[in-house]
Amino acid sequence: MAAAPTPANKLESLLHELIPISRAMGIRVAHLDADSLCLEAPLALNHNHAGSGFAGSLYSLASLTGWAFLRQLVDREGVAAELLLAEANVRYRRPVTADLRAWVRVDAAEQARLLEALRAGRKARLPLEIVLPEPADPAVTFAGSYFARPISR
Amino acid sequence: MAAAPTPANKLESLLHELIPISRAMGIRVAHLDADSLCLEAPLALNHNHAGSGFAGSLYSLASLTGWAFLRQLVDREGVAAELLLAEANVRYRRPVTADLRAWVRVDAAEQARLLEALRAGRKARLPLEIVLPEPADPAVTFAGSYFARPISR
Repeated sequence: MAAAPTPANKLESLLHELIPISRAMGIRVAHLDADSLCLEAPLALNHNHAGSGFAGSLYSLASLTGWAFLRQLVDREGVAAELLLAEANVRYRRPVTADLRAWVRVDAAEQARLLEALRAGRKARLPLEIVLPEPADPAVTFAGSYFARPISR
Repeated sequence: MAAAPTPANKLESLLHELIPISRAMGIRVAHLDADSLCLEAPLALNHNHAGSGFAGSLYSLASLTGWAFLRQLVDREGVAAELLLAEANVRYRRPVTADLRAWVRVDAAEQARLLEALRAGRKARLPLEIVLPEPADPAVTFAGSYFARPISR
């Protein structure tokens, strides 16, 4: 009998289903816990002319890491919300020469603030910092301004 | 007899060969002249959860439009250079609900400044504004800081 899908498996399937280029990029959920998410994508599918990580793929992976964390958070909490990226700044400090990895961490207080606004029927803006490939050794930093809006079901 | 490839055909083949995700995104060269380039990608391959253009694909298309314009410029002028995107800011003003299109225009004076620096063996930084889908009706604006470095052949 196949094992029941984990929350990480479910999130990965949801991304591939909703956003088809994430499947073409080979995006996988590498880590998911209550306050952090790591998405990965193979360099072989996402390299540039120089054989290092393509700037656009690094950005796509980062933007999805932020969006996917928020998406599984509202789903887990049973809150219906539309989540959008409004603006972002990305800085490439050095080439990424291995498989692409992006990390986001959202602390419990930030999560509570977002959920409280949505449950009260209010919009919320959430700035998120996403780091590739590891927080301790950033090659690329992404600062995104996400926007959440409650929707009625 | 097949027609000889145009500069636009050659640029499109080069992008697909050097940066494989550009092929998976279905990127095409829609327009190329001495001072402007338009790249396109079908919405069907690049939509998000809401059926509009995925933020990451919009960014990838924009960043490639800037890079590809510079690449065909230095190739056309016989100047060997490494071209990189160092930093970018992107703003999503409204959803893109048709096929994705990104435009860049680099005037002759900016082109001359870049080529002169490279021919003199100097690095150059070039800020480029890329607009989606049309300059007259921006849904997404991308401000990228590109970096060019002469390389010896």
